[in-house]
Amino acid sequence: MSLYEKLTEYCASDVYPFHMPGHKRRACSMQDPFSFDITEIDGFDNLHHAEGVLKEARERAADLYHSSETHFLVNGSTAGILSAILACVPAGGLLLMARNSHRSAYNAVSLRDIRTEYLYPAEGHIPPGAASCYSYMDINGPINPANVEQALSDPGRELPSAVFLTSPTYDGIVSDVKAIAGIVHRYRIPLIVDEAHGAHFGMHPAFPESSVALGADIVIHSLHKTLPSLTQTALLHVNGDIADRRKLRAMLSVFQTSSPSYVLMASIDSCIRQLAEHGDELFDHYIRILCHFREQAQFEQIEILQTDDPSRILLRPRNISARKLYELLRDRYHLQPEMLAPSYVLMLTSVCDSEEGFDRLLQALQEINELPSQSGQDICGVPEDVRNAAADTAAAPADRTVVRIPVYHALNSPQCKVAIQEAAGDISGEYLYLYPPGVPLLAPGEEITPGLIRLAERLAEDGYELQGAEDYTLSSIWIIKEDT
Amino acid sequence: MSLYEKLTEYCASDVYPFHMPGHKRRACSMQDPFSFDITEIDGFDNLHHAEGVLKEARERAADLYHSSETHFLVNGSTAGILSAILACVPAGGLLLMARNSHRSAYNAVSLRDIRTEYLYPAEGHIPPGAASCYSYMDINGPINPANVEQALSDPGRELPSAVFLTSPTYDGIVSDVKAIAGIVHRYRIPLIVDEAHGAHFGMHPAFPESSVALGADIVIHSLHKTLPSLTQTALLHVNGDIADRRKLRAMLSVFQTSSPSYVLMASIDSCIRQLAEHGDELFDHYIRILCHFREQAQFEQIEILQTDDPSRILLRPRNISARKLYELLRDRYHLQPEMLAPSYVLMLTSVCDSEEGFDRLLQALQEINELPSQSGQDICGVPEDVRNAAADTAAAPADRTVVRIPVYHALNSPQCKVAIQEAAGDISGEYLYLYPPGVPLLAPGEEITPGLIRLAERLAEDGYELQGAEDYTLSSIWIIKEDT
Repeated sequence: MSLYEKLTEYCASDVYPFHMPGHKRRACSMQDPFSFDITEIDGFDNLHHAEGVLKEARERAADLYHSSETHFLVNGSTAGILSAILACVPAGGLLLMARNSHRSAYNAVSLRDIRTEYLYPAEGHIPPGAASCYSYMDINGPINPANVEQALSDPGRELPSAVFLTSPTYDGIVSDVKAIAGIVHRYRIPLIVDEAHGAHFGMHPAFPESSVALGADIVIHSLHKTLPSLTQTALLHVNGDIADRRKLRAMLSVFQTSSPSYVLMASIDSCIRQLAEHGDELFDHYIRILCHFREQAQFEQIEILQTDDPSRILLRPRNISARKLYELLRDRYHLQPEMLAPSYVLMLTSVCDSEEGFDRLLQALQEINELPSQSGQDICGVPEDVRNAAADTAAAPADRTVVRIPVYHALNSPQCKVAIQEAAGDISGEYLYLYPPGVPLLAPGEEITPGLIRLAERLAEDGYELQGAEDYTLSSIWIIKEDT
Repeated sequence: MSLYEKLTEYCASDVYPFHMPGHKRRACSMQDPFSFDITEIDGFDNLHHAEGVLKEARERAADLYHSSETHFLVNGSTAGILSAILACVPAGGLLLMARNSHRSAYNAVSLRDIRTEYLYPAEGHIPPGAASCYSYMDINGPINPANVEQALSDPGRELPSAVFLTSPTYDGIVSDVKAIAGIVHRYRIPLIVDEAHGAHFGMHPAFPESSVALGADIVIHSLHKTLPSLTQTALLHVNGDIADRRKLRAMLSVFQTSSPSYVLMASIDSCIRQLAEHGDELFDHYIRILCHFREQAQFEQIEILQTDDPSRILLRPRNISARKLYELLRDRYHLQPEMLAPSYVLMLTSVCDSEEGFDRLLQALQEINELPSQSGQDICGVPEDVRNAAADTAAAPADRTVVRIPVYHALNSPQCKVAIQEAAGDISGEYLYLYPPGVPLLAPGEEITPGLIRLAERLAEDGYELQGAEDYTLSSIWIIKEDT
């Protein structure tokens, strides 16, 4: 069976998507893509040199987001993040970045000799109404403006060329971008916000304001994650006069194909028009059915958590494990979640969700709530020893990660492969991350601690797919050769 | 009118596409892309960590092209070229590359401190049967294996880390990849071939053999250019043990979105399956109608040139200018060409063309052949003085381009903007190229010669869109500040 047949068969089934893309396969309005897929012929402009229809389309997007310059991205937010960082930070420069950034930000600094200083998200962040059983993997909190101030104001430290952070996170945690932008701009350096998960921000009072409006210099939005646009489409917005727009445009031409898909670009334009013309009604309807769901969804055995972004529904079960909840939703109720975390399941909703979808989820949760407790299991997902081990690495306050050499140098140093059990104390030559969310647990150049090894082994045992390492089974790992 | 409406309206008209994409809007076989556009949910694998359906799909592509490892590219050949060069050449390293390479190869070396040494294509290449009126822009010849041998064998010169060339070119000129691979491998360095325009090579005896079969280590194929796949899809093939596959895979993850489009990937897989199952019949039919066209198309006033790739039809008019021919085909006959060059028009054909398309082209050319000569015009497109000027830059044998500093350093040096008339002798801070074909006439770090200025002015006057420069009108240009 071809991939296409497999996709159409799956999508014709009764599975309801509580995951990306945000169009939920319901925003159908296009013909066979082959029937209108063209290239840069006369009258259809050029993405890398827009003067006609694509320029107008970009201007409509800029109007919607109140940005002074907006670019279409057909290589996802990835292209925007790479471009923004490399446009703002010269080779040999320093980037102040949130440690809980997406892999693509690490990729950006790995392309050139760019050093990083990390901002760590607030510890043990507990969304309002949540119980206290939070563990190493669960929720990264926001970036604290005071930490940004501290990093920038110390005269003994090198001033970075830019500040990069992710807001909202995968879980919907929002940092105080307005305060951070205020601080960063006092030093005349740009603030880049990866708002990939927040393209819907500012579209309705129920959601936080967009970072574009809050003063960030460059903001990257994944359209496909939460809005009705095809996967792989995104936007990059620029405001103010701090970011070098000429360099930024040059980088966007580097990281995006010279044969961009008109199918993807048409999908971006249609999404923007739809929001500009009918956004209010669509979002009013969405918020009404979302709020109705949240009002109804009150269960003894399943906490319905809410972070800063109400579109994200985090389900934390008490009677069964999160993994069991994920499997039940998917296999018994045909409701595909977005992500399984050790103690919760993430359901992604969007403006394209239907009442039927929410009703099905409510019904499923009502039944699951009645299931008997599975005693003898570690329901919270994380046994004591692993939590302690994790504390050595991912959760110890200031030195969560021990950066021994910059990512760029690590990737360009001689490496060798060793058994993972023998790697404690060595410098990693590769990444380790869970996808989703794609935030590295370990980056090249960082020390491999005993705690990280136990954590990785436990995650692998528990069936989480650790990516980034060449050896998927994690029996071995590439490290930097000692004499380098 | 939205971009989507504009596209569907255009595509519903009677315009016949003698341009990319190669599917010619006739390979229609998909539903509304929104109806099957998903993300990496259970059962649908992960492009950056393929173990299931995507791994199998990649293996089918590798089988078709006889490659030992094949990767799907959803960010076009651009992603493949960036990845191949950066995987093979370390920072500070040297790349031996053909000067007539696509902009993306220059982008690759501009990301890191990579120096280039250029191989210049053979001069004044005249396809068999062509007249002698060839000029500065027209046809870049092949890369001569002897030049590669010379560059590598000189013990006084630094050995590059890799060799990069483009074969076929936009016009269908093929280099002797087998001989070049043999030379390059004696030095145990990889040969990277940008075969973006030759994904159909090896599919029928009428076409040259694919570089994959001829011994290149890494080969990049644009599927959409000549085969029935959606725009922005491509493949990267690896063979042998010289190229570092681990680095290559890592780079592919850097330059491609972490949210790849399943619509694009399904299109790649469907294209590969179609060729594997029905390729012979499809190509037999195509070659039959293409040969029939070439037999019939014998005109006094229009030369039908053939380069090494018979799929490219180059039309060189004698009675009217190439521009006039392009406009007549497009506006009177609704046959959209691929490219206008100063003395010819390029029509791109593919396995998806129809007899009706060829018949319409034949009919149009018959009528145009009867038009009276437009005397008093420079039919060949290039007046003597500009041809001489061009010789100072683009056509002088050994020092066609004067590289004063590497691209990377030029882009990272302080720059200022000057009037183009005052820029002679300065070092360029930007690119200048015609798109298509996207080969730089001038790259950052190269000297701006008086000839180049005259050439650029003349091209702009003649209505060619010079891209790469911030100032599209070319009244000013960014140069490297003198004291750097």
